[in-house]
Amino acid sequence: MLKSAPALAFDLTGNGNGKSIVILGGGIAGMTAAYELNKLGYTCTILETRERSGGRCWSVRNGSLSTEITNGKQQAKFDNDLYFNAGPSRIPHHHQLTLHYCKELGVPLQIYNNVNENAYYFSEGKGALSNKKIRVREIHNDLRGYTTELLAKAIDQNKLDTGFTKEDSEKVISWLMAEGGLDPDKLYKASARRGYIEQPGPKNRSGKISDPYTLSEILGSGLMEPDFYNVAEYTYELQMTMFQAVGGMDQIAKALEKKVAANLKLNAKVDSITNLDQGVKVTYTEKGVSKSITADLCICTIPLPVLSNINHNFSGDVSRSIDFASYIQTSKMGLQFKRRFWEEDEAIYGGITHTNNELTQIFYPSNDYQGKKGILLGYYNFNDKAKAVGDLSYQDRLTLALSKGSLIHPQYANEFENAFSVSWHKVPENLGGWAVYTSETRKTQYQALLKPDKQTYFAGEHLTYLNAWMAGAFESARSVVADVHARLSEQRIAYPTTESKG
Amino acid sequence: MLKSAPALAFDLTGNGNGKSIVILGGGIAGMTAAYELNKLGYTCTILETRERSGGRCWSVRNGSLSTEITNGKQQAKFDNDLYFNAGPSRIPHHHQLTLHYCKELGVPLQIYNNVNENAYYFSEGKGALSNKKIRVREIHNDLRGYTTELLAKAIDQNKLDTGFTKEDSEKVISWLMAEGGLDPDKLYKASARRGYIEQPGPKNRSGKISDPYTLSEILGSGLMEPDFYNVAEYTYELQMTMFQAVGGMDQIAKALEKKVAANLKLNAKVDSITNLDQGVKVTYTEKGVSKSITADLCICTIPLPVLSNINHNFSGDVSRSIDFASYIQTSKMGLQFKRRFWEEDEAIYGGITHTNNELTQIFYPSNDYQGKKGILLGYYNFNDKAKAVGDLSYQDRLTLALSKGSLIHPQYANEFENAFSVSWHKVPENLGGWAVYTSETRKTQYQALLKPDKQTYFAGEHLTYLNAWMAGAFESARSVVADVHARLSEQRIAYPTTESKG
Repeated sequence: MLKSAPALAFDLTGNGNGKSIVILGGGIAGMTAAYELNKLGYTCTILETRERSGGRCWSVRNGSLSTEITNGKQQAKFDNDLYFNAGPSRIPHHHQLTLHYCKELGVPLQIYNNVNENAYYFSEGKGALSNKKIRVREIHNDLRGYTTELLAKAIDQNKLDTGFTKEDSEKVISWLMAEGGLDPDKLYKASARRGYIEQPGPKNRSGKISDPYTLSEILGSGLMEPDFYNVAEYTYELQMTMFQAVGGMDQIAKALEKKVAANLKLNAKVDSITNLDQGVKVTYTEKGVSKSITADLCICTIPLPVLSNINHNFSGDVSRSIDFASYIQTSKMGLQFKRRFWEEDEAIYGGITHTNNELTQIFYPSNDYQGKKGILLGYYNFNDKAKAVGDLSYQDRLTLALSKGSLIHPQYANEFENAFSVSWHKVPENLGGWAVYTSETRKTQYQALLKPDKQTYFAGEHLTYLNAWMAGAFESARSVVADVHARLSEQRIAYPTTESKG
Repeated sequence: MLKSAPALAFDLTGNGNGKSIVILGGGIAGMTAAYELNKLGYTCTILETRERSGGRCWSVRNGSLSTEITNGKQQAKFDNDLYFNAGPSRIPHHHQLTLHYCKELGVPLQIYNNVNENAYYFSEGKGALSNKKIRVREIHNDLRGYTTELLAKAIDQNKLDTGFTKEDSEKVISWLMAEGGLDPDKLYKASARRGYIEQPGPKNRSGKISDPYTLSEILGSGLMEPDFYNVAEYTYELQMTMFQAVGGMDQIAKALEKKVAANLKLNAKVDSITNLDQGVKVTYTEKGVSKSITADLCICTIPLPVLSNINHNFSGDVSRSIDFASYIQTSKMGLQFKRRFWEEDEAIYGGITHTNNELTQIFYPSNDYQGKKGILLGYYNFNDKAKAVGDLSYQDRLTLALSKGSLIHPQYANEFENAFSVSWHKVPENLGGWAVYTSETRKTQYQALLKPDKQTYFAGEHLTYLNAWMAGAFESARSVVADVHARLSEQRIAYPTTESKG
């Protein structure tokens, strides 16, 4: 049977017999580790610096709070039934461990509609199609049309050394004509695939289709540039089917929290981690009071840029790996509107508008379709653009999101109600979106953290090849639980340990 | 403001003052006509031959019945919370009138996940990849890869008369490299886009990707032939976003039925339609008793192949249009399984597997993801394949669906529970799936039915350019209501009457 993921069973034998594990960080990785260790008979304590669990798995709702390092306190004032996922917002269908835990924990899923041909490309700049909103389907089909036309003609005229037989050439040309929507003369002309300017209807309303843009117009307007293909739906992780948790991605964290409520200390900020000759000692501040805890082993899921500022007695290699870790800068803003104008006026139901300006992407909500109000992601950007936005005050971010967004949706002016922004690299409990590696740092820094430093193990999305995804947190948690259990129970472990040959 | 559909307002002025309309057929068109005419003060009677309303808008559930013309009675034995949509199962996002009525009638929608890169292509026949299940993403990305590679090299080597400047050529080549996932040498090689044979995971599990199929293998295995692109997601009507009604598409019919319950006579089979000098007389049989009704006007939504067998005194032109109407042959079978093995074992969540055998398509359910049991569409086919399946007994259809389906999903053998099949051309109340036209018959037969025959008007999906879709039924209902109201109330009408120039 072809399976698209490793077996999900996690049937470790043996018992932890109450041995103690202190887990640093109450995000997905930390809580999953505690959940699995509880099953095995360990005594777990999770120290979480925030007043909530979940870490980056966070749905911003009415009353949600954050304080960024160069901005003050911010509180969300959304309507009670509205939210946006400030952290992970999409689950690929091949992230089987995320799906597994959703099922085991009873979190229902719904489709995250990542592909929407009716969303827009918006290119700010020069060119005939710039500063206009262009439906994704128009660009997709025009480009498929022109490129298949070029190739079909070249093959037809024997201009290429394809090595095809005559019969194969004909079959390939037929396929190209279908792929590109070409006419019988192998030309790309007006096609219903790119939509109607007057929809078909009753009686003699056969609909009216428009002429395609020319390749020159598309090219000259920047619509073939990386801004429009870099975060594309062809990426393995972004291919449909994609999911989200019904009611907000934080439902996953909340479901985990229920399982580990007895283990969880909130408002507990770690100050130091000290490997002892036997066991490990962690000092922390809980509501202004300094405390400490010792345990047989420690699992540290604290994001590396934050861990870098915590006292520890780790080895030089481990310390350097922590200090030189690279995390992405990324920013999101949720905008609440009085009505779902993107649906009502523009028939956009979920999906993403891509831009080449600071916004990068606008995400439309994949839930409560045809509802009254909604929150869309006014921007979701990375690196330089995320840094620029993150450096602004909350108010200036909003001004930017509204002014740039209004170029695409002039309804913003009348319909906007309120907003909340997160620049993850400015959030003191994270100092970055997620770990990023080069093939070089995978071989060096990354390796040092895969092994325990004496009694301290490291876990989280940053210690997987599923970095940036909740699946990384789940996979890493299982992996570290298997390691810990092997050490403390001296049992052989069942966790898949396939080494990559790639 | 760019809108993707005509305005949805249907604000007719004036009052019908109780004038009587007899509506033949209690499907979407007939019930919508009654719903709108009720608002305007008309007295409506709907005659529906079946013991249920909704017509083709039908979700087969436990206890559902049908009797086909060459097969006996069939009763569904599904679990109580399971169903499949035997008729329309997808709502395109640009079918605004369908969305409008769902909103007005309070029918919640969820995504119909029509695009799933993790479903299969299955080619029965000769060739290296035949008789194997191939993930859609593998074929999509391999073909994109090879064709962009051919074109990028041809442009790079100046083999084509593109008229591009050197700078434009470079931009086009960059785009082609991104579109196809080419390597820096403009070659298509192994790519994560086509999936992993070992998924990435924690520590050094970087994942393992496979080599692509060769173009020759794909071509030689029939995977570039029309079976695999004829019912493609590039079609305007099948582009995401697509919807379905939560709980079954029949929720739309049931919501309409609530609005017209007082107008609806079930089990009322029309025997004759007679235009009188003034008004119209319809005779019908209600539970074995012959009855008749007269009304000021009649709206006839009966499918044309069925209407052809009903006595009437229509003009020769109208009569001929009815008698020579062409309807598609189409068949669907719902298969209930003990567990959702396509999800659990193969990570297929919604979407479609395409085959070149009798099955044509397997549809996976777009609801209750990660649930216990499920019903998938074992086949959904058209024309010759639908005819062949329709000619079989219910049992032989099942044998075929299970044997061909088992080639793709060997789990069928252990997991199958029960089934229900519909061949719409064999259903006596329909005698076909939906109206199909050529550009020639649109000019001739079609035209005769757009006007009333004396006091009888015609309506339904078959009198629109949205034939085959519920949107056609809704649009046609509004159109005929506007015509009827204009005649009886002598009011100017507001319904859009744009004539196509296409």
